[in-house]
Amino acid sequence: MEKRISGHTGLMALFGTPVGHSGSPAMYNFSFQHDGLDYAYMAFDVTEEEMPKVFESIRLLNMRGGNFTMPCKNIAAQLVDKLSPAAEIIGACNVFVNDDGVITGHITDGVGFVKNLELNGAPVKDKKVVVLGAGGAATAIQVQLALDGAKEVNIFNIKDKFFERAEGTKAKLAEKCPECVVTVDDLDDKAKLEEAIKACDILVNATIMGMKPHQDVTLVDKSLFRKDLVVADTVYSPEKTKMILEAEEAGCKAIGGVGMLQQQGAVNYGLFVGKEMPLAEYQEFQKAQAK
Amino acid sequence: MEKRISGHTGLMALFGTPVGHSGSPAMYNFSFQHDGLDYAYMAFDVTEEEMPKVFESIRLLNMRGGNFTMPCKNIAAQLVDKLSPAAEIIGACNVFVNDDGVITGHITDGVGFVKNLELNGAPVKDKKVVVLGAGGAATAIQVQLALDGAKEVNIFNIKDKFFERAEGTKAKLAEKCPECVVTVDDLDDKAKLEEAIKACDILVNATIMGMKPHQDVTLVDKSLFRKDLVVADTVYSPEKTKMILEAEEAGCKAIGGVGMLQQQGAVNYGLFVGKEMPLAEYQEFQKAQAK
Repeated sequence: MEKRISGHTGLMALFGTPVGHSGSPAMYNFSFQHDGLDYAYMAFDVTEEEMPKVFESIRLLNMRGGNFTMPCKNIAAQLVDKLSPAAEIIGACNVFVNDDGVITGHITDGVGFVKNLELNGAPVKDKKVVVLGAGGAATAIQVQLALDGAKEVNIFNIKDKFFERAEGTKAKLAEKCPECVVTVDDLDDKAKLEEAIKACDILVNATIMGMKPHQDVTLVDKSLFRKDLVVADTVYSPEKTKMILEAEEAGCKAIGGVGMLQQQGAVNYGLFVGKEMPLAEYQEFQKAQAK
Repeated sequence: MEKRISGHTGLMALFGTPVGHSGSPAMYNFSFQHDGLDYAYMAFDVTEEEMPKVFESIRLLNMRGGNFTMPCKNIAAQLVDKLSPAAEIIGACNVFVNDDGVITGHITDGVGFVKNLELNGAPVKDKKVVVLGAGGAATAIQVQLALDGAKEVNIFNIKDKFFERAEGTKAKLAEKCPECVVTVDDLDDKAKLEEAIKACDILVNATIMGMKPHQDVTLVDKSLFRKDLVVADTVYSPEKTKMILEAEEAGCKAIGGVGMLQQQGAVNYGLFVGKEMPLAEYQEFQKAQAK
């Protein structure tokens, strides 16, 4: 029975819409309880227009931290008191931390991705990385790769509205991370893509291709996979995309999207409470629940 | 381990200061979980000045209901959209219920008190009741007695700042409940008090006398107790005040303050979710916890 919430319990929260399906409350509440931390994490359905009021609530209810999701990440970056370096470059944040009324915005999509690569034996420092896509997660990953010392980030995107964003990312990184070479090319330029993949150390799919209902799609022909190529996907449903399965077959180090999500949660947890998240224990708990 | 809060869980809350010691989160959360209702109840320390923002948060976070405690009950009555009859007379509310954005304020101190008397075999209809005190709880009880059909409410209070409030209550009840006779007298007028107690059916202590550290104080000489007098106390710590112990000795029906609190919680729960609170189960749970 419920013993955990008392009059002293602090609130943390996820804001955005829709949020009802989010797994974050379960994950963070498990972790708070596991670690004996007196917080409860809830999710609130709010629109972009309501975000100024969200910040008043964060302050009023003295929330220690929390998350922003679509469509509130960009406006959130304008409402925080401070921004992390990555959040400043990207102009968006998915995490806030409230230090006695000073609210800092962070973006951890990229941090979780890079941390997961490292945990899987694929550090990014001095590496050439091809990133497919230029949406929100893709941009966060590109910026984090540059901040973490990648030698090159080759962005490929189709010529849609996000292509311009990729060029903006390139321009910002030229200013903030001049030691990292950033290129932007058309994903439909197959020769250019092939050339880049052949020259790179890590290939990342940060588009929705491979995700249900696009599970039969892969953007890279498997003939380009070689044993010393790291292939990473941000898609986590299915857990192994067509690209990941083909990369495994080719003997590549293949890294699916689930770990990125988990590492992002762990990074957020560290920002909230300064502790390592009990991720293994949570995974055990989830397995037990699923039975 | 925590399984109860998901992305769909609704927030309810207590607002006031201080609130950290409140037992409400434990009681309501137990009940929600027991009844399979998807809410979490938390407490937030806020000042009177912050109450307009509290109402914005209630609306923004779509809270179904909650409570106000000191010092926020009066300002709350000015900020709700509608007031219950008792809350309107008293000008204060300790409960809010949010029906799709229409927030109604209720005051349930008096309702809980009267309900507890009835559960203890002491209905108030057509009865003469002496009430000692004119603070917040005392006023709520006086108003509810009148609303619930008491024949007379004789208020006794010392000539402090609350004496005037008692006279205000009398004036309001003369307008709203003209069939109930309300008198206001000086608690230090021992002859008047004695006369009133001798003529009444129910005697209520709604002052802090009898409460720690005033546990050795009683405002009524035990020589006035007789078998057919109902003696009720709003003080719940100690569970049996000196007045209650002396009333028991004299063979009166003696009703301590704990039940009033519990019934108030149950009344609130009914307003929030339209169900009877699992009070007996919660009391069992508390006993098990205390072991």
